[in-house]
Parts: sequence; structure tokens; C-alpha cells
Amino acid sequence: MSAVTDTIRNGVNTEQLFATLDLIKDQPELAQFQFRVSNRWIEGSHNRSTIKGFYAAGGEDTSRNEEFVIDAGEPAILLGTDTGANPAEHLLHALAGCLTTSIVYVAAARKVQLTCIESTLTGDMDVRGALGVDDEPRNGFQRIGVSFRVTGNAPAEKIREVVERAQKRSAVYDMVTNGVPVAVQVTTD
Amino acid sequence: MSAVTDTIRNGVNTEQLFATLDLIKDQPELAQFQFRVSNRWIEGSHNRSTIKGFYAAGGEDTSRNEEFVIDAGEPAILLGTDTGANPAEHLLHALAGCLTTSIVYVAAARKVQLTCIESTLTGDMDVRGALGVDDEPRNGFQRIGVSFRVTGNAPAEKIREVVERAQKRSAVYDMVTNGVPVAVQVTTD
Repeated sequence: MSAVTDTIRNGVNTEQLFATLDLIKDQPELAQFQFRVSNRWIEGSHNRSTIKGFYAAGGEDTSRNEEFVIDAGEPAILLGTDTGANPAEHLLHALAGCLTTSIVYVAAARKVQLTCIESTLTGDMDVRGALGVDDEPRNGFQRIGVSFRVTGNAPAEKIREVVERAQKRSAVYDMVTNGVPVAVQVTTD
Repeated sequence: MSAVTDTIRNGVNTEQLFATLDLIKDQPELAQFQFRVSNRWIEGSHNRSTIKGFYAAGGEDTSRNEEFVIDAGEPAILLGTDTGANPAEHLLHALAGCLTTSIVYVAAARKVQLTCIESTLTGDMDVRGALGVDDEPRNGFQRIGVSFRVTGNAPAEKIREVVERAQKRSAVYDMVTNGVPVAVQVTTD
């Protein structure tokens, strides 16, 4: 195996990964990050987020050249015109993406070369809550199911360990399972 | 005011909105929905979700003509190449989108014509948790801040009531603040 393929595993630069971990161990104050989203209502259930700047490692990160633009919407049955996936689907995407990246990084660190990660996520919702028809069902999903298929050059047992470790370290899995305090402010002029 | 502008408020068909609420009150079993996301790893922190089918109102909904495709990634400092917003940013987008649509629907139902909804969301994270450097900081955001600017043809007090009601009914706000049980399954072949 060449030095390059040894350093880059699953598309992750493991040398840089371990250097980042060492740096943050030495200087924990560099671990304070802030991510941000700006959103603007367009019409009905159509709104749009723009995402670019963030704070990381002691300063404003300016490495991103372009902003990401993501639209939200609702299907017809929820009074929209499919201008984008709906917000609950975006939450499932956030969870899928974070678990998947966590699996990739943990596998890279543990010298597991992955060949495939596929997942399907389901979220069950009683929409009486969110529509305000009934106070009993909660507004959000009652439960989320995640089904992964993960393959690579390691025994099944090791791959399962990688997935378990990734689950224990995923930022979005933590937020979705444990919740986060949210403070909402409003101005009206 | 014409009948049409009276029915369509904030881009929401209020006649259809109230008909939907009445239908679900009469037949609560129609309120069971299931949303779904399929995700596939591409390379490194790059993965992609596709979103189309969902279950709603007693059957599989087939009204969507095209699937939504959403990419995730990480910035350079988190070992990616900006192939998309990162999963934690997607979660903020989900929250922004859901609160915004909830405001629009509640305002439509309460005869408030909105002129603007803008929001900025921030999420503070100590990345030592997610990177596995330290067990003490949690993996996800310690807190999320949401700052709304909402204007429309109603007194500030009424607009604030609309936002409060929307917050009480938002599916993603419920999930992000209270958490959801998540069951993860893995196959390795």
C-alpha cells in the first residue's frame, strides 16, 4: 500500500484527522464552533435557507467560497406545492448525513476501508399534533427508524463496532435523541 | 377584497386548510403519516439523500413528481471539501423551515397577512464531543438561538401571539427541543 492510500482512507485524510485531534487536545478552546443558518420566507410553505459563514478554531472561518442554498416546502396534502423537501424530512436528512459521516470518520481512524454505506430513515408522525387538531399526539415524530447497510474490508463484528461508536459520537444523533435548548427571539418591525 | 384573495392568504389556501382540519377531526386515523429519506455515502464526508415517497391520509402519497436530492458535507477544518452544508447546519435549516411554515399557517388561519419572515439561527458546539477527544462536552449543540423578524398587517402583540402558537405546534421544534426515540439497525452484507 502506498503512503498516499495509507493516509487517505474512505476519502478522509487520516493524518490531518489525527493532527486535528491532537491540536484540540492541546488547546481545548479551539473546539468552540458556531454554525449558522439564515432563512427567508418566500410564499406559503416555501422558504429558503442560506448557509455559509461559521466560527471555528478561534476565529471566523472564511474557507467557504460559496453559500449553500436549501429550499423547504410541503406536499399538496400539507397545503404546499413541493418547493422542497419538508422540514421534518430535512431533519431525517440531517440525521442520516451525520451518522454516515461519523461512520466514515470512525472507520478511517480504525483502519477500516468501507465500500458502501446506505441507509433508509423513517419518521412516524400523527399530524393532529402539528395541525393543532388534538393536544394529545406530540407535534414531531413519535419515533425514527434508521436502517443501515454498511460493508467494508473488516469482519461484520468490527463494522458493527464502528457503527456503534459513530452513533455514540454523532452530533445530530445526540441532538435528535436528547434534545437541545432552543431560545426564540422575535422582532416585529 | 375578492373571494380568491380572501381564500388564499400568505400563499396558503385557507379553505383547504380548514377542510383538512375538519377531515382529520372526523377521521383521526387519516392523521398517521410517515416521512422517509434514503441516503448513500459518496466519499469522505460527502453523502446524498433522496426524498420522495411518503405515507399520508391512509395510503401511499404519489403526488410528488420528482425526488429531492440533498447533499451533505463538511468544511475543510472538519476534514471535508464543502460538498454540501454539514449535517448540523441541515438540522438548523429544518428548524428554521418548520418554525417559518408554522408561522405562515397559523397567521393564515388567524387572518394575519404577513409581509416578511426572516430568521437567523445559531448553534454552539464544542467539537471535542463529536470528535471523541473528551467525554464531557455533549456531541451536539449546547444551545440553539433563533432570531425572527416577522412583519404583517397586525399589531405587534398579535404577531407575537402567532409566533408563540407556531412554536407550540412546530413538528421540528418539538423534536429538537424534546428529542425523539431513534432505533438504529445495521446489516453488513
